[in-house]
Amino acid sequence: MRSYQEMTKEELQQEKKALEAEYKKFQNRGLQLDMSRGKPSQEQLDLSMGMMDVLGSGVDLTCDDGTDCRNYGVLDGIYEAKELIGDMIECNPANIIIYGNSSLNIMYDTISRSMTHGVMGNTPWCKLDSVKFLCPVPGYDRHFAITEYFGIEMIPVPMLSTGPDMELVEQLVSTDEAIKGIWCVPKYSNPQGITYSDETVRRFARLKPAAKDFRIYWDNAYCVHHLYDLDQDHLIEILAECKRAGNPDLVYKFCSTSKISFPGSGVSAIATSLNNLEDIRKQLKIQTIGHDKVNQLRHVRFFKNVHGITEHMRRHADSMRPKFEMILDTFERELGDLAVGSWYKPKGGYFITYETLEGCAKKVVARAKKAGVVMTPAGAPFPYGKDPKDSVIRISPSYPNMEELTLATQIFVVCVKLVSIEKMLDGVC
Amino acid sequence: MRSYQEMTKEELQQEKKALEAEYKKFQNRGLQLDMSRGKPSQEQLDLSMGMMDVLGSGVDLTCDDGTDCRNYGVLDGIYEAKELIGDMIECNPANIIIYGNSSLNIMYDTISRSMTHGVMGNTPWCKLDSVKFLCPVPGYDRHFAITEYFGIEMIPVPMLSTGPDMELVEQLVSTDEAIKGIWCVPKYSNPQGITYSDETVRRFARLKPAAKDFRIYWDNAYCVHHLYDLDQDHLIEILAECKRAGNPDLVYKFCSTSKISFPGSGVSAIATSLNNLEDIRKQLKIQTIGHDKVNQLRHVRFFKNVHGITEHMRRHADSMRPKFEMILDTFERELGDLAVGSWYKPKGGYFITYETLEGCAKKVVARAKKAGVVMTPAGAPFPYGKDPKDSVIRISPSYPNMEELTLATQIFVVCVKLVSIEKMLDGVC
Repeated sequence: MRSYQEMTKEELQQEKKALEAEYKKFQNRGLQLDMSRGKPSQEQLDLSMGMMDVLGSGVDLTCDDGTDCRNYGVLDGIYEAKELIGDMIECNPANIIIYGNSSLNIMYDTISRSMTHGVMGNTPWCKLDSVKFLCPVPGYDRHFAITEYFGIEMIPVPMLSTGPDMELVEQLVSTDEAIKGIWCVPKYSNPQGITYSDETVRRFARLKPAAKDFRIYWDNAYCVHHLYDLDQDHLIEILAECKRAGNPDLVYKFCSTSKISFPGSGVSAIATSLNNLEDIRKQLKIQTIGHDKVNQLRHVRFFKNVHGITEHMRRHADSMRPKFEMILDTFERELGDLAVGSWYKPKGGYFITYETLEGCAKKVVARAKKAGVVMTPAGAPFPYGKDPKDSVIRISPSYPNMEELTLATQIFVVCVKLVSIEKMLDGVC
Repeated sequence: MRSYQEMTKEELQQEKKALEAEYKKFQNRGLQLDMSRGKPSQEQLDLSMGMMDVLGSGVDLTCDDGTDCRNYGVLDGIYEAKELIGDMIECNPANIIIYGNSSLNIMYDTISRSMTHGVMGNTPWCKLDSVKFLCPVPGYDRHFAITEYFGIEMIPVPMLSTGPDMELVEQLVSTDEAIKGIWCVPKYSNPQGITYSDETVRRFARLKPAAKDFRIYWDNAYCVHHLYDLDQDHLIEILAECKRAGNPDLVYKFCSTSKISFPGSGVSAIATSLNNLEDIRKQLKIQTIGHDKVNQLRHVRFFKNVHGITEHMRRHADSMRPKFEMILDTFERELGDLAVGSWYKPKGGYFITYETLEGCAKKVVARAKKAGVVMTPAGAPFPYGKDPKDSVIRISPSYPNMEELTLATQIFVVCVKLVSIEKMLDGVC
């Protein structure tokens, strides 16, 4: 197939007519499809139903150390859960605090605490004139929502195929004391599916921030969310690398089982240096008596150990892989030659990002919506919802079943083609 | 029996000698007893084990409205849970947000949000020179820990048998704009077991605060924690009373199932006006995607409805009542005539407060500790841990079994007697 750029105006007009007819047909079906959020499918949720059976009225809810999980106590999580999560994210259990059901909530609390009480004895951010965060873009909208909520100025940093543009990160972080953090989804990033290269992680660990209270917010949300058993991305463990680099306190690492067991009913955790943990515990002991230990135990008893998680995630992959492959194959087949956009081919995570011609993303999303396909709003993966090129569209393959997803992908492709042609014909999109 | 005041010095010295011998005997037994925290006993926890069976891999985890509890979504709780909690605390489900496992965490978050973002459009507290809270004393140490952590000045207000001294509350609240809240445990109060009188609640609802962002922090922790089936305290429902009084936004009401199902693995909630809820939701949607709906459903399926909670709490009462009665009977028998202190007789809740002669509480607690009985530190029920009269001791009957508790009470009584006699003999305690 020839690219649209190579076609004549007449050919484009003809193509457009055919696409409009196709689009109309989809529209007339009154579809309701959703590719907007990274929600597991029912099939994936069913994989964890065994978790509802591991505890029962006849089961002893006591930890190895004698803790009765049913009662108050144990501020930072039962040891068994720390060990399980530690193995999952390659950290020492001693560096881990287990929280409630949401790693987003930990991140929020971390920022909130920094606002009111500062980081390890430094000035509370609410007392500073200016607080800034670096935001690799495209990134995760809920991260940006937290920093925006607290009035933190967000500075976009472009994502490269190796992770954030580290030259820019190094330059900004080393010169501006107002920069207090950077949001990272280092593995199978949201939304592009990029894993930070070894060099990127090493450069992160070697940052020399102007601000003593600068921290890397390392949201390792997709740490075990591979699509393939052997062909997996590898991410260097950042805590260990920071320790080796003489920067042990530089990073907060977050994770959860939201997309492993049940979203909203899993466990989440932070892993960080002992100094940071001490700082966090000062607040945590005021905030709560402890998180849900019964649910921690439920996870431990269900997965048993990290091998259990690996096997479990293999079954998740069996559900996700065909969806990713179908979308990527469709893109390749339908859009590969047209020169109307680009995408990465993630080996894991929850998202595929389609990058349209400049100025087309909003129109594609709007067109898709009118044909019954809900997408993440264009712009969402950027601070303040503003994509300067209006070209990034996040696609979430997980939730719909294959039939729905196939249909949604076909509709999406038609929308991309149509909007691209319109841009070419009009000169401006 | 005669009171110690009526005894001669010689008689007191003789009594002291006998008590010291008794104390020594207890000491030699090397006991380890704990009356320090309001933790349910194992017997009480066993009452909720059926909760581990109501969900299972064969059970549909879908709400009446079709929500799959296993997936993301539903920011403020499933309807069934709002209805259950609403019936429990006598509020409209529409006025309720269900949170995670800890009402303390909701209170912390409420204060934290007020610090960084203010209350319903008013100036964030972190921008103010002075923020103050009224603290009815004795009160709950963890409340005071939150306000202390945020640097909020705490003003003690004496508790009377009807609740806080409302004349003082009204006077302070109406004149000082820096006063932004008051901590209340209105039913079977922690630690005295006092329930606010009808007049007290009505006066609360009719407060005319100088600060527009003043709120009553109404921690209804012991709402269904009666000892008796018929002889129960009744508390006027504050939200309704505030609405009637034309003050609908005046109160945040908190509750949890921590001492109903499993502490740490229950559900908690806030109930407040729609205006306040709107204010809260603005933050909540940034902080989390939602709380643990599976656990909410577990509670709904286990208790079925508020009648289920009532029946369940009747069984809790069967466990708690003999403990309360044993302690109160022992106090009456052993200390009733001696004029060495006073106490209320709670009809519910988790605590009994013994008020010693002035200046004796710390010494009694220290003595008890040396005989193997851990009590809540004297002073804990006061802001900054400072009991001006050094006379309040909180007793938590729930956790030990009857045998342990009986022993601990006997030891406590001996300590009270000893320290009281010492005070009288020395002139100074």
